[in-house]
Amino acid sequence: MDMEAQWIVGFVDGEGCFHVSINRHAEMTTGYQVLPEFTIVQHKRDVQLLYAIKAYFGCGVVRTNHDDRMAYRVRGLQHLQNVIVPFFEKNQLRTMKQHDFRKFCQILAKIQAGDHLKPQGLEEIRDIKQQMNHYKLRYSPALMET
Amino acid sequence: MDMEAQWIVGFVDGEGCFHVSINRHAEMTTGYQVLPEFTIVQHKRDVQLLYAIKAYFGCGVVRTNHDDRMAYRVRGLQHLQNVIVPFFEKNQLRTMKQHDFRKFCQILAKIQAGDHLKPQGLEEIRDIKQQMNHYKLRYSPALMET
Repeated sequence: MDMEAQWIVGFVDGEGCFHVSINRHAEMTTGYQVLPEFTIVQHKRDVQLLYAIKAYFGCGVVRTNHDDRMAYRVRGLQHLQNVIVPFFEKNQLRTMKQHDFRKFCQILAKIQAGDHLKPQGLEEIRDIKQQMNHYKLRYSPALMET
Repeated sequence: MDMEAQWIVGFVDGEGCFHVSINRHAEMTTGYQVLPEFTIVQHKRDVQLLYAIKAYFGCGVVRTNHDDRMAYRVRGLQHLQNVIVPFFEKNQLRTMKQHDFRKFCQILAKIQAGDHLKPQGLEEIRDIKQQMNHYKLRYSPALMET
């Protein structure tokens, strides 16, 4: 399947997510692990699309997400910084996910600098994370069945 | 805002819907009205995108959908057949929405032929409609908050 950059941008504007989780982790100095990830979730019927996107980017994994959902997921800092970020810098998102992407990049830069290993840096990352993914749309297609 | 066809296809693969509703309507011979529509629902924060898509296609309306959601909607048979259908024939969808689109086109052709005004045609339209939008994804982004 031949992927085009603009199709991917449109699809990610609809279905993609730039997300940072901060989880308790006893082995980390701060007691917390910072985990940035880029994901696209789809019903399993379209899993071939997720594999095509994985092939396009040349990184990431396709995994079961929940029930009938599959997810394409990129977690590694190097893949995020060297592949995903340059792609979306060259091909800008058009929805407000562009805002989330900018915040995501700020957090990646802090992780790159090792800030996430220090209490103050971790707090700064938490502050940026608070500004992300605010207006998530919890829509049910059933609402359109009128 | 400059729209590109492939971005729109990707976005519609994520967020678009080809839908046919069959509603009771006393004034119709069959007692039912068949209403085909193409919609894209977004959080109101991205309403400017819906207006850009409306400008791109040169038809349709942007309306409040539900709560914080806005919808771009094309309902008229002529606009659907002369604008929306040719666009998605030229720029093919990549998800299984392509299947829904094909069924949608079959129903439009039946409406064009006046079949929706006859009991048997209406039943045929119902049969096709049954084959549409089966695997709608009811996802909650909160599930990704792990």
